Amino acid sequence: MDKILRNGKALFLAYDHGMEHGPVEFEKAHEAGDHEFTDSLDPQFILDLAHRGGYTAVVLQKGLAQDYYDVWGADERREVPLIIKLNGRTNVPEIEPFSPLICTVPEAVELGASAVGYTVYVGSEREAEMLEIFGGIVEDAHSAGIPVIGWMYPRGKWVTEKYGKDTNPEIVAYGARVALEVGADMAKIKYTGDVESFTRVVKSAGRTKVVLSGGEKTEKPEDFLQVVKDVMAVGATGVAVGRNVWKSKDPLKVTEEIKKIIFA
Amino acid sequence: MDKILRNGKALFLAYDHGMEHGPVEFEKAHEAGDHEFTDSLDPQFILDLAHRGGYTAVVLQKGLAQDYYDVWGADERREVPLIIKLNGRTNVPEIEPFSPLICTVPEAVELGASAVGYTVYVGSEREAEMLEIFGGIVEDAHSAGIPVIGWMYPRGKWVTEKYGKDTNPEIVAYGARVALEVGADMAKIKYTGDVESFTRVVKSAGRTKVVLSGGEKTEKPEDFLQVVKDVMAVGATGVAVGRNVWKSKDPLKVTEEIKKIIFA
Amino acid sequence: MDKILRNGKALFLAYDHGMEHGPVEFEKAHEAGDHEFTDSLDPQFILDLAHRGGYTAVVLQKGLAQDYYDVWGADERREVPLIIKLNGRTNVPEIEPFSPLICTVPEAVELGASAVGYTVYVGSEREAEMLEIFGGIVEDAHSAGIPVIGWMYPRGKWVTEKYGKDTNPEIVAYGARVALEVGADMAKIKYTGDVESFTRVVKSAGRTKVVLSGGEKTEKPEDFLQVVKDVMAVGATGVAVGRNVWKSKDPLKVTEEIKKIIFA
Amino acid sequence: MDKILRNGKALFLAYDHGMEHGPVEFEKAHEAGDHEFTDSLDPQFILDLAHRGGYTAVVLQKGLAQDYYDVWGADERREVPLIIKLNGRTNVPEIEPFSPLICTVPEAVELGASAVGYTVYVGSEREAEMLEIFGGIVEDAHSAGIPVIGWMYPRGKWVTEKYGKDTNPEIVAYGARVALEVGADMAKIKYTGDVESFTRVVKSAGRTKVVLSGGEKTEKPEDFLQVVKDVMAVGATGVAVGRNVWKSKDPLKVTEEIKKIIFA
Amino acid sequence: MDKILRNGKALFLAYDHGMEHGPVEFEKAHEAGDHEFTDSLDPQFILDLAHRGGYTAVVLQKGLAQDYYDVWGADERREVPLIIKLNGRTNVPEIEPFSPLICTVPEAVELGASAVGYTVYVGSEREAEMLEIFGGIVEDAHSAGIPVIGWMYPRGKWVTEKYGKDTNPEIVAYGARVALEVGADMAKIKYTGDVESFTRVVKSAGRTKVVLSGGEKTEKPEDFLQVVKDVMAVGATGVAVGRNVWKSKDPLKVTEEIKKIIFA
Repeated sequence: MDKILRNGKALFLAYDHGMEHGPVEFEKAHEAGDHEFTDSLDPQFILDLAHRGGYTAVVLQKGLAQDYYDVWGADERREVPLIIKLNGRTNVPEIEPFSPLICTVPEAVELGASAVGYTVYVGSEREAEMLEIFGGIVEDAHSAGIPVIGWMYPRGKWVTEKYGKDTNPEIVAYGARVALEVGADMAKIKYTGDVESFTRVVKSAGRTKVVLSGGEKTEKPEDFLQVVKDVMAVGATGVAVGRNVWKSKDPLKVTEEIKKIIFA
Repeated sequence: MDKILRNGKALFLAYDHGMEHGPVEFEKAHEAGDHEFTDSLDPQFILDLAHRGGYTAVVLQKGLAQDYYDVWGADERREVPLIIKLNGRTNVPEIEPFSPLICTVPEAVELGASAVGYTVYVGSEREAEMLEIFGGIVEDAHSAGIPVIGWMYPRGKWVTEKYGKDTNPEIVAYGARVALEVGADMAKIKYTGDVESFTRVVKSAGRTKVVLSGGEKTEKPEDFLQVVKDVMAVGATGVAVGRNVWKSKDPLKVTEEIKKIIFA
Repeated sequence: MDKILRNGKALFLAYDHGMEHGPVEFEKAHEAGDHEFTDSLDPQFILDLAHRGGYTAVVLQKGLAQDYYDVWGADERREVPLIIKLNGRTNVPEIEPFSPLICTVPEAVELGASAVGYTVYVGSEREAEMLEIFGGIVEDAHSAGIPVIGWMYPRGKWVTEKYGKDTNPEIVAYGARVALEVGADMAKIKYTGDVESFTRVVKSAGRTKVVLSGGEKTEKPEDFLQVVKDVMAVGATGVAVGRNVWKSKDPLKVTEEIKKIIFA
Repeated sequence: MDKILRNGKALFLAYDHGMEHGPVEFEKAHEAGDHEFTDSLDPQFILDLAHRGGYTAVVLQKGLAQDYYDVWGADERREVPLIIKLNGRTNVPEIEPFSPLICTVPEAVELGASAVGYTVYVGSEREAEMLEIFGGIVEDAHSAGIPVIGWMYPRGKWVTEKYGKDTNPEIVAYGARVALEVGADMAKIKYTGDVESFTRVVKSAGRTKVVLSGGEKTEKPEDFLQVVKDVMAVGATGVAVGRNVWKSKDPLKVTEEIKKIIFA
Repeated sequence: MDKILRNGKALFLAYDHGMEHGPVEFEKAHEAGDHEFTDSLDPQFILDLAHRGGYTAVVLQKGLAQDYYDVWGADERREVPLIIKLNGRTNVPEIEPFSPLICTVPEAVELGASAVGYTVYVGSEREAEMLEIFGGIVEDAHSAGIPVIGWMYPRGKWVTEKYGKDTNPEIVAYGARVALEVGADMAKIKYTGDVESFTRVVKSAGRTKVVLSGGEKTEKPEDFLQVVKDVMAVGATGVAVGRNVWKSKDPLKVTEEIKKIIFA
């Protein structure tokens, strides 16, 4: 676990949007021309950003790990550890959420991963399949001696019906607790909107560390920085950021501002 | 089996509610402030309670076993044996009950379990899947030399339609019998409401021992103690208690009252 | 095969009703008090009955095999061989019939089984799953050197629609033939109601031996004995009896009457 | 492959109707009394017919292979090689066609099979499952050094909707081609009704040999013999015949007439 | 990868239409008599065409690989490497697109494949199953040291509903990106209709090489050649062509014209 932290804190550059949302996330940024030096469609740009920005790890699907990270310089790899996201899906079919396993733990280790991630759509009608797979990943990863990060995302028709939205503090705390109960070492969690409820989320997760899921680019950068401040203040271990950095006008500057908060 | 009993009797502190119901079970207690020295949201509190209260075992999901029990003092672990619950689910999706396998028997043994538990929703449309998995667990656990406890919970639309409620004595006795037929060493069973029918439940279970499932906190503590007296009087082996203890004003005092009955 | 026969004939005491129907089958007998010396709810009573009655084998689910048969005296075990029923289900969910595998062939052998049984609901919409599993059981059992008995029960909405009832001679003969085609050594079959049609059933089964499925307790004991006479007369190998014995006023007397017919 | 051919031609006695249609196929023959010396319900009659008739192979489910073929004389077995049909189902449930695997390739080899057969319901909504299993059988059989025969039967609601009937030349040719594409050594195919279209079927199958599926007994024996002539004339390798032989008044005579055409 | 390229460019002769569309694709050509020297129904014709035309690889299902490619001359095999398509289905059942695995990676290697192909129907409701299988193929193929080509075809009701047609640039680019994310070495992609949008597709695929999926025969050969020019101009690695060659009047002449563009 220490490998993907610095001073016990986490700053992850998450880049699994090509799988989850398609290149549209990158193309829009490109079309808008709202950051100066390159195009986030290119994974190499992201790796360079992770390196220059001093991120504690970068999150990739196995294809990018194999074609970009694995052929990167040894120094860069040492400085920016790899987290491989083991499952993924497109956002095309609008059915009860389920994300299939694309990469096994041994394959991730082979590709140089220092940790693995897996999404559980807590509350989905297909939750059972994901919990079973997740249980197996925890077993495999701990046998291999690497930590597991759970993307704990409440989702599906029952979540909507019973909790209204997926950032309802009660269901977010439930998701965080599931991460602890199933044996995740870290949980990637959406912000609940206020400090008090997020305190409860962090406490529900117990010894499972909580990292903030960065989410969509906020209208004003200050809004995102305020959220980072809030979650760090109540015990979060760090943040996993993506669009709020690479869609900004100056990704390195935003990165420095986040680092000031996290490593304060 | 002797490991999780004392003088042939069982007093289990069950704590799988974080998975099954979410932290709301703990939060309510916290909000109400109705017990003095701590918050049941914290698994360490539960372990301390199990130790100070002299429970014969504590029931945890594998994540809590790994993050709390496994790093506990060796003395405490020796005094409070571990039962790992192998399956679990959230209560969010309201579909025909099914609970997936999260932990294998070898993994439970590795984490220090002296016994394993598994929920079968008897009568569910997905009963077949659970019976098949349960059959495999019985085989694996007996190969590993540890006992299996079946959470025998009638549930699902056919139970409601044919038996009205899941504590109908006929269906509860059926569940107890299934535990015996499939090879469980112990069955965790809800109270049927009266001594006579529960006598029949215990007899239906044959050589499979019966432990009472504590259930929700009763309005008056005496009500719960009376149920404990009733089931012990007709041959139950003990109780698995959770909310009736940690949601009480004085968990240790309630524990002592239960012990007086069980170890009488 | 010789192990579970005497002079080439079979008299099995079937006792898987706890799984298939629940303890209600036993309780009613108990409530009615219509047999004198004990309560069929207790598996030990059944074992003693099998022993005293001179049955050629007893049929149990693996849980009863493990908790009762396996701890029985060696002499008794030698005299009453064990048939383990490998699959089972409750009668609660009223869906297209399917019965999951609860016990593997190696596990049955380990528990002392001299033969194994498996139910195929011929004609069910889930028939394909059962035929595939049954095919595997035949392979495993024959590798282990023990015979396989198929409970060949036509059932499901298509059986009702196309054949009216599950004792329609045409569908019963079809079920018997499936046993032969898939490789069962013996088929447990319901009576078709008349000698002529049952002759055809036995002939359809070819070299697969046919044992009568005893079924519900008949109003008059003579009615059941007549059925036994009929099926033995046309080439059946024996009967598997349960309720017609233990629900009778004098189980041993009924047993003797059946034996007179079978071993005539 | 040579084992099940004579002079490169095939004459198979197919006898899997007990599984696919039930004993009714045999009973009707019996009731009508329209062949003189025995009843096709008895597999031994079929084996004797195969032997006396000089068939190049007999097609059986594994149960019949085990109970009849395997205990047959060594000479007879050498003269009438065995083809085991690996999958099968009853015709009771009228759902989208799927036929489960009942016998594995190694088990078939153990039982003495010189070749294996497998039905693919081309065009069924469950076609994908069958193609995947069939692909595995091809791999296993070729590893074991025996040929695979595909029963290529277009069937299911889409076949009806798009092609009208399952002998539409276009869909039959498609089925034949699938056999080639997936790696079957031989394809069992229904007649398309005319010589021209069957020529196209045979050509579509390429190096996969085509054998005619005999089908129901034709009203006049000449009609069946004409079909055999037609398919042999356009490159078929032979026929798999069942009901047109054993339901005839003189099975051996019909057999001789077929042989005159095939081995001409 | 170099094995199936020449000067870094790809010219594949794709011939999996017998599986995907049936012989109708070949028969029509035949009936129309619109190419002079042979009939594309015969796989040997295709192999000869691949050889004489100087294709860099030929794409076949495993059945054709086994019956034609594997028995071809060693010189021809050396000059025309083999790509085995691992999955396939017929176009008969019109259900949510899914294509089952028919051939494993080790089997493909055994049959002489230098690369393997697999279709992912991106956006299908059964996408999850295909992504999981595809992830496994990538792992197996890379262990075996051969490249993987993803047929990235957006398809299914959600693609139609959200993107109108399956050549909508946004969804085509998404499909190309999925190939990169999951670890395909090459992606077979349909043309989006204009140079600008296809540039974006190629860029989305990153280090995964893009080959054009030839598609149906265009009315005028020039139209197809223009598409080849367009995609090569914006960074595609080559084309996989089938019907535009063998349905043409002079397949070798068309081949030469394509080669002029690709190897320019």
